[in-house]
Amino acid sequence: MDNTRAVELYDTTLRDGTQGEKINLSVQDKLLIAEKLDEFGADYIEGGWPSSNPKDEEFFTKAKKLNFRNARLAAFGSTARKLDNILNDPNLNGLLNSETPVITIFGKTWKAHSDRSLGISDEENAELIRQSVTRLKNEGREVLFDAEHFFDGYKDNPAFAMNMLLSAEEAGADRLVLCDTNGGSLPHEIHEIVTEVAASTSIPLGIHAHNDSELAVANSLTALRAGAMHVQGTVNGIGERCGNANLISIIPNVILKMDGRFCHRLQLKNLTSLSKFVYEILNLPPDTKAPFVGRSAFAHKGGIHVSAVLKESALYEHIDPTTVGNRQRVLVSELAGQSNIRYKARELGITLPEDNAELFRTIVSRIKKLEHEGFQFDVAEASFELLLRQEMGQFNPFFEIIESKVHIESGKNREPVDQALLKVEVNDEIELTAADGDGPVNALDKALRKALRTFYPEIRNIRLVDYKVRVLEERKGTSAKVRVLIETSNGENTWSTVGVSTNIIDASLQALSDSLNYFLFSCREKAEA
Amino acid sequence: MDNTRAVELYDTTLRDGTQGEKINLSVQDKLLIAEKLDEFGADYIEGGWPSSNPKDEEFFTKAKKLNFRNARLAAFGSTARKLDNILNDPNLNGLLNSETPVITIFGKTWKAHSDRSLGISDEENAELIRQSVTRLKNEGREVLFDAEHFFDGYKDNPAFAMNMLLSAEEAGADRLVLCDTNGGSLPHEIHEIVTEVAASTSIPLGIHAHNDSELAVANSLTALRAGAMHVQGTVNGIGERCGNANLISIIPNVILKMDGRFCHRLQLKNLTSLSKFVYEILNLPPDTKAPFVGRSAFAHKGGIHVSAVLKESALYEHIDPTTVGNRQRVLVSELAGQSNIRYKARELGITLPEDNAELFRTIVSRIKKLEHEGFQFDVAEASFELLLRQEMGQFNPFFEIIESKVHIESGKNREPVDQALLKVEVNDEIELTAADGDGPVNALDKALRKALRTFYPEIRNIRLVDYKVRVLEERKGTSAKVRVLIETSNGENTWSTVGVSTNIIDASLQALSDSLNYFLFSCREKAEA
Repeated sequence: MDNTRAVELYDTTLRDGTQGEKINLSVQDKLLIAEKLDEFGADYIEGGWPSSNPKDEEFFTKAKKLNFRNARLAAFGSTARKLDNILNDPNLNGLLNSETPVITIFGKTWKAHSDRSLGISDEENAELIRQSVTRLKNEGREVLFDAEHFFDGYKDNPAFAMNMLLSAEEAGADRLVLCDTNGGSLPHEIHEIVTEVAASTSIPLGIHAHNDSELAVANSLTALRAGAMHVQGTVNGIGERCGNANLISIIPNVILKMDGRFCHRLQLKNLTSLSKFVYEILNLPPDTKAPFVGRSAFAHKGGIHVSAVLKESALYEHIDPTTVGNRQRVLVSELAGQSNIRYKARELGITLPEDNAELFRTIVSRIKKLEHEGFQFDVAEASFELLLRQEMGQFNPFFEIIESKVHIESGKNREPVDQALLKVEVNDEIELTAADGDGPVNALDKALRKALRTFYPEIRNIRLVDYKVRVLEERKGTSAKVRVLIETSNGENTWSTVGVSTNIIDASLQALSDSLNYFLFSCREKAEA
Repeated sequence: MDNTRAVELYDTTLRDGTQGEKINLSVQDKLLIAEKLDEFGADYIEGGWPSSNPKDEEFFTKAKKLNFRNARLAAFGSTARKLDNILNDPNLNGLLNSETPVITIFGKTWKAHSDRSLGISDEENAELIRQSVTRLKNEGREVLFDAEHFFDGYKDNPAFAMNMLLSAEEAGADRLVLCDTNGGSLPHEIHEIVTEVAASTSIPLGIHAHNDSELAVANSLTALRAGAMHVQGTVNGIGERCGNANLISIIPNVILKMDGRFCHRLQLKNLTSLSKFVYEILNLPPDTKAPFVGRSAFAHKGGIHVSAVLKESALYEHIDPTTVGNRQRVLVSELAGQSNIRYKARELGITLPEDNAELFRTIVSRIKKLEHEGFQFDVAEASFELLLRQEMGQFNPFFEIIESKVHIESGKNREPVDQALLKVEVNDEIELTAADGDGPVNALDKALRKALRTFYPEIRNIRLVDYKVRVLEERKGTSAKVRVLIETSNGENTWSTVGVSTNIIDASLQALSDSLNYFLFSCREKAEA
């Protein structure tokens, strides 16, 4: 790898990533991810294929309001399909209408595709590429040419593949991106072909790999070593079939192992949180085995070397986990429980009584019991803190829910009804309230705030910012337990709470109660401080 | 790769694989997997580390009764730890007592480990390796030497690493297995080092890679090309931290892409079922994105090229999925072009009217609209089929829900109440039912079945097997839309349905209704056929 040159980071999570099965992003999701990628330091963010669906068009309209600090937004599409109508080509027009500074178009570079899918002559295909690039360049855009199925095409007919590539270069394309579209190439093939292409072209080369042979990361790194300086991929390797090249693995390999650097100074310490953030938005469970960022990536189980690992981590870990925002874990279950709790308590600024072994055992066993039931405290630190403080006698709930009733009606040709009734005890007073809502949980949330607002007017200023449901023990069907995670904010701080029950309403109420209690507790604590 | 030599397949799923987090295999599980691996054509099956735990000892006792057709069983352990006591070394004795034809021992080949973990001189370490190998060879075993942290060791001090390796060779080891123990090496490093080692040793070399840099498959293939002829890994890449090299990907790459062959003729067509079998025994959900064998590995989503995929699969798929026992799938999604829908319909056995462009457009636009609202049909094929058939006038709902009421009560010191009331119209009759349940959705499910069972007694035989909830637009808090996915089975078949609403009860009811309608429709269709 030529380390005098910086590598360009091109993210296509929002476009190629969404081709993956079970991957579904709303426009709002895409905007959130785009902001995160920009913050992380991506050079290009490919937002979608504007003429393929209304969602992508809406995204590009809304994305105009984003103020990127690092990234340039790219729209993706194909070259024109007919030579006699380049100026009216709907795809090219769609790309131009998206008003992005960058446009990425793909063209055929495998002769079999040109012959059989498009059914046109070699010269016609070259001309489609040339004229499409020219038109976009004439409109002042940065144009990236994605050479579709390039490696298969080159293996089959190198002259054809090179001609198509050179057509794009001659027409003024800014980058030539070599795509292993079906993910079938091996690293040594990538090495040979990129080396040869680099010798016959003079604009920067990129690599776009897929993971069908479990080689996408290796193929991307190989291409960078062979002369490419632009790498395309997705966060967590999401994408069609087996996914795209995983940027989450490529980035630390380039920086930490190949002494490479990217154009922007990447927030490598945020790599783990970037990965989690995208899983979270996709509502997919994170891959615990994921290299670099997975929960298990630096988890040591083998009893024999755990003491050695603790003594000298560098002898057992390929990188320092903190460089990518991850951490070492030791899976000695009993011990891990206690040390985790101490570690977390310290993190939250709670001083646990060092000398009270009895109390400590009580806390550990209560947490273990709750975790066994499905509670998850590592993503609900506010609930965790309340629990610790309650056991230590520092916290008493500000209210108690004595009774809850929810009533839901819907039917043909009638307005749906979602009503909640709550009986809440506060300072020995009983308060009975009811509220309508948009769905039953919303009704409960409103009723609870109504019951509490005369006692605790400060709760007016907080709002729910996130609400998640996960079915535990899924095989139990509709009688399975659910876990509800709630995120609440007062504008300044954000905190997470959890509830578990076979009844989603109950689980939500637990998480809502914890959220309000945590807020009230924090206010009192601040007032005292 | 020297294709005149066959590659040896060494499986360590039962030993290194079980070091993975959440991986737990009983002795019986291990025996079942061992038999399957033998049947598949593995050359070596590493069963465990006999002196490390009683479970592995029990496995080796029981494994003596297995009659392998292809494989040889290997026991794993370390070299002796003290020079003055080789004959009484508990680890070596444990290995010999396991009575396996093959013994694999690991030794230190990274000087830092020898110096700091063991605290012995270079010559002492070499002697431990030499004497341990000699002792096992004297007992007539085939001995494989695993060179622990070999690549780090070689990069740090090639002379030391080579000396240790040559000690094992001189003592009569049958194989030298180069281990990238912490998974940190890059393919080009593997290539250089294996090439150099091959030039200075004369017994067969093996490779044992870990996936910490997402490069284990590439590193294994690279080592084979550079001179190794023995490859170690696990089924599905399970193993400590990020896992071991995934044999499920290495095998087809070697056979289908590198023109290599293994010592035994592998049952490549059983690759997908081998992968599923191991996931099943581990009680882990299969990785749908897994290269070669995943459910999504040959699933096509992008509307634009589906018509071409159908025309000529080889232009879009790196291998023929049937060679590894997998199959092509076409997903219906928001990017669905007309050809996706046609293909899917054909797969489901539905003949779409070829000549009715108007109807076709209606179907496509209805699907797009629903997907925009949050419906996802690629994971809910039964809902998709009902939608198609309804548009084509082939299906009318078997019942209609006129009204639904759900009542939920909970409180301090009282039994929770979850009641559903439903008014359902069937064949112009109105049926009003109510049911208690374990949570509101369970109550609704029961009430709906109760309402329908007099009309459609066959629904007694079906049961819900899976229930999933995902909050869409999570940032809207408790008033966000939710999508419910339900999987139902009649013991013979399983089908999936979907519902979307701001109200989880409503969304569940939609999915439940689709599920029952689909079942009833299928029964009628079968009866007519």
